[in-house]
Amino acid sequence: MELADKLLAGDRRALARAITLTENEDPAAAELAAAIYPQTGRARVVGVTGPPGAGKSTIVDGLTYLYRQSGQRVAVVAIDPTSPFSGGAILGDRIRMRRGTVDPGVFIRSLATRGHLGGLSWHTGSVIRLLDAAGFDAVIVETVGAGQSEIEIMRHAETTVVVLVPGLGDEVQAAKAGILEIADVLVVNKADLAGADRLAKELDMMLKLGQPPGAASGEAWVPPIVKTVATSDEGLADLMAATERHQRYLAESGRFETRRRRELTAEVRGLVRELAGQAACAWAETAGRWERAVTAVVARQSDPRTAAGGLVREFLERR
Amino acid sequence: MELADKLLAGDRRALARAITLTENEDPAAAELAAAIYPQTGRARVVGVTGPPGAGKSTIVDGLTYLYRQSGQRVAVVAIDPTSPFSGGAILGDRIRMRRGTVDPGVFIRSLATRGHLGGLSWHTGSVIRLLDAAGFDAVIVETVGAGQSEIEIMRHAETTVVVLVPGLGDEVQAAKAGILEIADVLVVNKADLAGADRLAKELDMMLKLGQPPGAASGEAWVPPIVKTVATSDEGLADLMAATERHQRYLAESGRFETRRRRELTAEVRGLVRELAGQAACAWAETAGRWERAVTAVVARQSDPRTAAGGLVREFLERR
Repeated sequence: MELADKLLAGDRRALARAITLTENEDPAAAELAAAIYPQTGRARVVGVTGPPGAGKSTIVDGLTYLYRQSGQRVAVVAIDPTSPFSGGAILGDRIRMRRGTVDPGVFIRSLATRGHLGGLSWHTGSVIRLLDAAGFDAVIVETVGAGQSEIEIMRHAETTVVVLVPGLGDEVQAAKAGILEIADVLVVNKADLAGADRLAKELDMMLKLGQPPGAASGEAWVPPIVKTVATSDEGLADLMAATERHQRYLAESGRFETRRRRELTAEVRGLVRELAGQAACAWAETAGRWERAVTAVVARQSDPRTAAGGLVREFLERR
Repeated sequence: MELADKLLAGDRRALARAITLTENEDPAAAELAAAIYPQTGRARVVGVTGPPGAGKSTIVDGLTYLYRQSGQRVAVVAIDPTSPFSGGAILGDRIRMRRGTVDPGVFIRSLATRGHLGGLSWHTGSVIRLLDAAGFDAVIVETVGAGQSEIEIMRHAETTVVVLVPGLGDEVQAAKAGILEIADVLVVNKADLAGADRLAKELDMMLKLGQPPGAASGEAWVPPIVKTVATSDEGLADLMAATERHQRYLAESGRFETRRRRELTAEVRGLVRELAGQAACAWAETAGRWERAVTAVVARQSDPRTAAGGLVREFLERR
């Protein structure tokens, strides 16, 4: 396959086209994914997430610069939830990457997620592998973390960086407990703002309370808390060092392989759900089945669950 | 069914139990949903969404009070994404409802969404119908709107109120265009803050740019922009009036029935996907099928898409 060969040779236009095919769920994308798969698994994947306004993009820009300084090729995938509150398609156009745009060692792409509630995670995994196959050493996945689907996306990252800032309101502050589940590295950004020290202290206390067995002896990973002022590059080198330390920890403890297997299991499971669901829906769209089922539901003769269950049963027992 | 009878009689403990069964996907919940379905469709559903920190809970509290003043029974469903950035299970415990907690005409429940990426929308629809069957006149669904799944949830509301505040950062501000898609009423909360007027003006301009045909003649609905300072109840009566005007518009224009049909179609479709996906996964979990598929993927002999496709094909063609 010509596109696969070009991609593996590092051709940027082939890469851009391959990502578009994947986003559009073009049948060629599945073929391409299969063709390049044996050549993947080499790139390191770092996820950066956090609430809107935390300064994730600035941190990603800074990290990209540092990766480049150390000679690595970097790809950035910005997941763009196309949601009313997180940037929509506009995110894709925003001016970013203060320092990296004309550097051939940097590739940036926004992924739209509209309509791909279930397939989101698949797209992300596939796109990461395209970048991996195209020779990028590091892939940074940036999401506006505010939903279950963003957490799913973070499964593709070996190291997840959670960015927080002081003063984001109760809803965010009340949520700090949940962060411990996904964060490998915690960042308190805008550390020059009032409340930054208190936030860092609270996080530290919560980490100590939730410490896994083995933390004291150094066997388990305890997420470091890094303070940054990303707009002036303060603390970004520390952040870089912390993510690298985490990657070494994963490799040396054997947890890298465990994590990879868990990720791939989740991805295959998500795909099985998605593909089986698609097949059932495609079938239900034929012979007026939707129409009949929905009409019965609207007339309150059948409830949605019963109607859907009936369709699925008929689908699975057909022929 | 005893539980259904108690629920229809307005028994609060039966209602609480029914919601728990639904959240837990207990088989009894499906039965219950079928039993009460013919008695539903009466309650008005208002969705309140917006970014974290916009003051949604305060607005919901205020609306609840006003509904009560007008003699209506109100249920509040707070969707709790159990995500690191939006409140997690802690949201369920937060002190809220300054004025409504001991009022038997008010019912408040948080719905956790962990693990229910696909089923979320079903749960919400089912829980709304339980509240409807239990005799609540109005159901307010509150979400931290930041993802595709929250938009799905908003499909269950006839009237969607989007709450914004000045100064939430670029990611939020850049997203205003997307709001027009789901907002029936726009709220600029914290209207006493600097920037509130500018935000309202920008929204107004965007609404005018995106005006649907028929807007000038009053045939199409143009979302009103309501300024509020929810903490001191300013503007909440206007908000209440705007939602009521929207409900009347839906009823009089015949759009209510169209919207209801569209919602139910989406719900049945979501359930078909979910149930077919579950069936495929349950099957794949038998006879070591996952294990074999994932092992091949980890060894890079098969890519995730091909492995999943193989499992689904085998599932659909089995016997």
